[in-house]
Amino acid sequence: MTLDLAGDPVALTAALVDFESVSGAEGPLTDEVFAALQSLKNYELTRDGDTIVARTNLDRKHRVVLAGHLDTVPIADNVPSRREGDLLYGCGTSDMKSGDAVLLHLAATVEDPAHDLTLVLYDNEEVEASKNGLGRVSRNHPDWLAADFAVLLEPTDGTVEGGCQGTLRAKITTHGKRAHSARSWHGVNAIHAAGAILDRLNGYEARQVDIDGCRYREGLNAVAINGGVAGNVIPDRCDVTVNFRFAPDRSEAQAEAHVREVFEGYDLEITDSAPGALPGLSAPAAANFVNKLDAPVQAKLGWTDVARFATLGIPAVNFGPGDPNLAHQAGEYVDTRKITAAVQALRRYLQAN
Amino acid sequence: MTLDLAGDPVALTAALVDFESVSGAEGPLTDEVFAALQSLKNYELTRDGDTIVARTNLDRKHRVVLAGHLDTVPIADNVPSRREGDLLYGCGTSDMKSGDAVLLHLAATVEDPAHDLTLVLYDNEEVEASKNGLGRVSRNHPDWLAADFAVLLEPTDGTVEGGCQGTLRAKITTHGKRAHSARSWHGVNAIHAAGAILDRLNGYEARQVDIDGCRYREGLNAVAINGGVAGNVIPDRCDVTVNFRFAPDRSEAQAEAHVREVFEGYDLEITDSAPGALPGLSAPAAANFVNKLDAPVQAKLGWTDVARFATLGIPAVNFGPGDPNLAHQAGEYVDTRKITAAVQALRRYLQAN
Repeated sequence: MTLDLAGDPVALTAALVDFESVSGAEGPLTDEVFAALQSLKNYELTRDGDTIVARTNLDRKHRVVLAGHLDTVPIADNVPSRREGDLLYGCGTSDMKSGDAVLLHLAATVEDPAHDLTLVLYDNEEVEASKNGLGRVSRNHPDWLAADFAVLLEPTDGTVEGGCQGTLRAKITTHGKRAHSARSWHGVNAIHAAGAILDRLNGYEARQVDIDGCRYREGLNAVAINGGVAGNVIPDRCDVTVNFRFAPDRSEAQAEAHVREVFEGYDLEITDSAPGALPGLSAPAAANFVNKLDAPVQAKLGWTDVARFATLGIPAVNFGPGDPNLAHQAGEYVDTRKITAAVQALRRYLQAN
Repeated sequence: MTLDLAGDPVALTAALVDFESVSGAEGPLTDEVFAALQSLKNYELTRDGDTIVARTNLDRKHRVVLAGHLDTVPIADNVPSRREGDLLYGCGTSDMKSGDAVLLHLAATVEDPAHDLTLVLYDNEEVEASKNGLGRVSRNHPDWLAADFAVLLEPTDGTVEGGCQGTLRAKITTHGKRAHSARSWHGVNAIHAAGAILDRLNGYEARQVDIDGCRYREGLNAVAINGGVAGNVIPDRCDVTVNFRFAPDRSEAQAEAHVREVFEGYDLEITDSAPGALPGLSAPAAANFVNKLDAPVQAKLGWTDVARFATLGIPAVNFGPGDPNLAHQAGEYVDTRKITAAVQALRRYLQAN
């Protein structure tokens, strides 16, 4: 098969969905996309593993990244794709082959772009972060990603989502002393001691903050609690795992300091964390994007790969035709009108004035 | 081998220890004890599985049960027994072959007892309650156990322990609503909700009560807590298991009502319970025992088989030469002087006036 990038972007979406590319097995689709991009003039192609980076060199004032991952979650008896009226069903229709199709179609049809473009089509987004193709390229070849602005075509249902919140997990442990429960006063109950940790969580007032016109809402929550030795033993240990979702005006270090302050006096271990990303919408290239698109702007509360661009100092947003609420579901679909609308909106932005 | 019941009770203890009888494999020792008891005059023997019941029929005014279990916890490289000075080491030395030896020695040497005697030597005390030989006989042949008073020769270090506390376990569950932890306000955190349960436990004031001169101290404790779905999910369920140890002036039903009152408003399930046993030391036969022994009297805070006698309406106490703190330990031993002292004390009680 040959991918027809310049044709109907809905048909291109269906073709990409029908070409299975579960994380770790996206190589054949990557080969296919690489071959299709080779037919375009203006683009210089490089590849790292199953990630493609294609760049124009037109000496424009600004350079913009358009990025999408090529992999999907495992197929759930939902490939090949199936069209019902305006809806296209299938694995990856929303997350995010419709976004990839928009990106590839624009690369093939915007002949005189206003900005130099860097296309990134990457592998292993749907699995552990250590395998992420965008992360690998940003470590191995940060120069390939150098740009003034980045658009990640993740599903946002046609809105612009600026930045993303950070996430941090910590395990807080209470310690006690074992004793037979018939003589409990000889022991110290570590589960009872965890009550004060839950009290602090219940009394915690999560901050809301506006940054570049986006409202971020933080949250501090217990996501696990475990304690107990046996039915007749006063437990000597209880572990509470909390997850802090923090607005991108805090660094990872500041988020950790905040959590340590909330649980001051407790044995606390950070188990994992990832930084947020400032929306950066006040940067000229980003402000220009928002103006040209004339789409609603909101904060991204979950964590996404835009944080990887933020780490490189590049303002980045999510903007894509898929519906984030349908991602990873067997009944996943995309409204094909959103694909057409995304192409039109991005074309306004990319077309030279 | 033949057990020498009438000889040195310390040597008899050693002989019983050297004859391994881990729970479920006590049959050969039961056979041996049965044969030894057959040589005694005055005793009528019956057997149910590996439990022996031997009764005198001397038309005394009162009948007294002397009971001990023949099984032990698994051997921990501590058989055969080993003598060091006054200490006899080995599996079961304290729990409770020294008690069995005292019982058997008295049966063989008190020729004209003040009370009719019922000896009970039973199986499977160290495993799940459903296998307990004393429980089996109390269900199958309650008439075999009919008596005015019962002495269980469990290790008490030479004190008289009256009655025992009851125990009840309940699982209290909080319910919430799952949501992604990045948007926690869409959910309801069931772990946070468990904070109020721990607050009630922390604020609980355990009762102390004197019954028949014994002080009982109750306790209400969390023994397990579990909640959590995944590191990025607001949990919709948290389970707290509590253990209530209650004085024997409360019935099981009253104990349950109390726990339900403490946790009113919560989803609560009783997972298991066992009644306490009143010391019954004001009953004439029991008061006589305490007088004759002239030993310190205290409450038994753990649960023991004396509760099975209480269920049959028979006042019962624990009194034995072993040390309860050494039970189930690889380094288990008994102070042989306690064996001699227990024989002397019980002989005073059993000898006709």
